[in-house]
Amino acid sequence: MRRIKAVACYDGSAYHGFQRQDNAYTVQQAIEDALFTLTGEKISVNGCSRTDTGVHAREFVLSFDIKNAIPCEGIVRGMNNMLPPDIAFKSCEECESDFHARYNCKGKEYEYLIHNSRGKNPFIHSRAYRYALPIDEKLLQKAAEKFVGTHDFKSFCCADCDKENTTRTVYSCTVERQDDMIYVRISADGFLYNMVRIIVGTLLYVNEGKLTPEDIPHLFEVRDRTKAGVTVPPQGLYLNKVFY
Amino acid sequence: MRRIKAVACYDGSAYHGFQRQDNAYTVQQAIEDALFTLTGEKISVNGCSRTDTGVHAREFVLSFDIKNAIPCEGIVRGMNNMLPPDIAFKSCEECESDFHARYNCKGKEYEYLIHNSRGKNPFIHSRAYRYALPIDEKLLQKAAEKFVGTHDFKSFCCADCDKENTTRTVYSCTVERQDDMIYVRISADGFLYNMVRIIVGTLLYVNEGKLTPEDIPHLFEVRDRTKAGVTVPPQGLYLNKVFY
Repeated sequence: MRRIKAVACYDGSAYHGFQRQDNAYTVQQAIEDALFTLTGEKISVNGCSRTDTGVHAREFVLSFDIKNAIPCEGIVRGMNNMLPPDIAFKSCEECESDFHARYNCKGKEYEYLIHNSRGKNPFIHSRAYRYALPIDEKLLQKAAEKFVGTHDFKSFCCADCDKENTTRTVYSCTVERQDDMIYVRISADGFLYNMVRIIVGTLLYVNEGKLTPEDIPHLFEVRDRTKAGVTVPPQGLYLNKVFY
Repeated sequence: MRRIKAVACYDGSAYHGFQRQDNAYTVQQAIEDALFTLTGEKISVNGCSRTDTGVHAREFVLSFDIKNAIPCEGIVRGMNNMLPPDIAFKSCEECESDFHARYNCKGKEYEYLIHNSRGKNPFIHSRAYRYALPIDEKLLQKAAEKFVGTHDFKSFCCADCDKENTTRTVYSCTVERQDDMIYVRISADGFLYNMVRIIVGTLLYVNEGKLTPEDIPHLFEVRDRTKAGVTVPPQGLYLNKVFY
């Protein structure tokens, strides 16, 4: 038995997230189906994270066991033929037999794309969130810096989140504009459910004057989801990098 | 009754082309449905061209009649709310009552995107045709120039095309590379069915050494579809501009 570490990427528009579900087609299912076609083995893969419906991944790490002796580059080539066109395998390597894509993960970087335009662009509707009001990216950058460090992110996770420990360490949080696209990038040692989408929604509250950058430290203290911004939609979210 | 000239754009991935069909959802249907929701009028639109399943349009001109007094900018705003996210109205104006989007059209520009890479990119699979062999864009440009001028394009249209007159005038035909993307742009006074996709397939034949640039004038003479290149797939094709 060989333990494999694979790096995939996908456009999540057509999938009900990564994680296998009984009633909906997911990225995990597509990958396990393709592995079965390729090897004849019923392989169960472990993903580095769950991603929601419509969320994308530029780098998504998987671990799984395989009996077949097919070389790693053969797995990449074979999987790219078997998988649907919106999922790809970027690389594959044999790893330590105790490597686990989720448990060994030391951190991740997410990116959120905001199409800052009054004009509807049919070519990016499933790749970015359109926001029509002018965005002051310098003001957002000032607010973004307040998230860096070790904080209690209870106000920035889904209200029914039942995690006991809601403290996370954000390594960096930046806001950058390229033409009419705003890129928010956040890297941290871990993320709570909807954390990136609520942080981005909170940055947009700052843009709209509903909050100031100085209010953010207070949000860590109150531990109250209703005080932070809205959860922005999934199509702008990309899992960018995974650290081990 | 007001005659309206409207400019739309769309990602054609989800549609069975522009033209209304009995058994399949098309861009025309989506636009007419949205116009009905907006105005309560059963409006039949005329499009500047048919586009095939999966083909995109950055600029697609429509003409239609409307009784409703809604101002033109209200049509644009209203349609952008009513239409699915992959179709947009860019502009709208009242025009002469005899204007017809197809009959008055004096020419068009198409663009074909080739993703020249061995790597699978899940984010552009429905927006470009992936071609793995290295492309010599300078050689293709030499071949592309042979298409410019007035020629009989019988060899470059679908074999069952029943048009009597297969002579068209190509104003320009260029090949340009930006990183791993090749852009083929063709403008002409008119296009036969599949003409752009067969011209691009012929350019790729030149890339593969199956034809030389010097063979192209001969292809105009033989009037034989089997002598030209393959019809490349639809997802790389964009209607770029429409001339009146």
